[in-house]
Amino acid sequence: MSSLLEQLIEAFRILPGVGQKTAQRMAYHVLEREREGGRRLAAVLADAVERVGHCERCRDFSEAPVCATCASQARDRHQLCVVESPADRLAIEQATGYRGLYFVLQGRLSPLDGIGPREIGLDRLAQRLAEGEVHELIVATNPTVEGEATAHYLAQIARQHSVRPSRLAHGVPLGGELEYVDRGTLSHAFGSRSEME
Amino acid sequence: MSSLLEQLIEAFRILPGVGQKTAQRMAYHVLEREREGGRRLAAVLADAVERVGHCERCRDFSEAPVCATCASQARDRHQLCVVESPADRLAIEQATGYRGLYFVLQGRLSPLDGIGPREIGLDRLAQRLAEGEVHELIVATNPTVEGEATAHYLAQIARQHSVRPSRLAHGVPLGGELEYVDRGTLSHAFGSRSEME
Repeated sequence: MSSLLEQLIEAFRILPGVGQKTAQRMAYHVLEREREGGRRLAAVLADAVERVGHCERCRDFSEAPVCATCASQARDRHQLCVVESPADRLAIEQATGYRGLYFVLQGRLSPLDGIGPREIGLDRLAQRLAEGEVHELIVATNPTVEGEATAHYLAQIARQHSVRPSRLAHGVPLGGELEYVDRGTLSHAFGSRSEME
Repeated sequence: MSSLLEQLIEAFRILPGVGQKTAQRMAYHVLEREREGGRRLAAVLADAVERVGHCERCRDFSEAPVCATCASQARDRHQLCVVESPADRLAIEQATGYRGLYFVLQGRLSPLDGIGPREIGLDRLAQRLAEGEVHELIVATNPTVEGEATAHYLAQIARQHSVRPSRLAHGVPLGGELEYVDRGTLSHAFGSRSEME
């Protein structure tokens, strides 16, 4: 096997969920059938790792100092949705009709890993709430232990600045069958039941 | 979402088995945690698509005109193993103690797709058998309809040049349970049973 090929297989392994076998398949596939696409991927990737930084308003990925969403005049500046990651932000943007702005923590509070409020940009968030433009802080951190702790902290900050905090609803997923829903979710959904009209 | 990020997600989709969601995850992962690895992948990939060609002896991938295996003095030049793809060649090299040489078809006979003997290098293979160095042609094409047709064709070429053709054994996989083996394999294994000593 050629040494450059070995290097290519090894290099593919940085991708998430890609082990030795998949990396091999990727390398062979590109060399056999996708040289043009491979050339393009190499160029875009080299460009992106150098030039994609973070938006100084929302901390999402952005080439420009301020991302397109934050710069847009069409978005409602009174609502701010806080998410843990760019992927979460994208999921909400694609699934909902939300027209407000976002704030991307790029993480969650995790004192044991040395991730405190500063590391996830909460000083900057507090500053922003102090400006008075935001009326509602939509807390969309993940429903994990760390995400919940972060949510509580965010709610506190919001109240300190007289901003109304809200939280995504948790419960049985649509189309899910009760039988297969995990106990924690089912228990929460049962406790949070609402009256039918 | 930044446009360079969108381009990166799109570029990742050339990889086998990578759809929109996985491409997103890859792009975010590289930008969040693997910029150095991403830089390296971009460089190696750009290099590989330009410089990795095919060995002129065995048609496997190689940077040099003749690959390391074909150039090696330690390999047995009397045995030649024919495989469909570089991945098949690697699988045999890693799983068996085979010390002979290889010939990589980079495909299989498929007249309907316009893939005839020339396209998979059989003219070059015949030439090589005519040189008289090879004594055994080990036919390791896949046990599919096209792979079997290719195997028969290869056996004919071998016999024309007084080379002994052989074929990998087919049957029940080791560790497999009869109950779960497909009918074709089971039927073949039953028909090809051998006497126990």
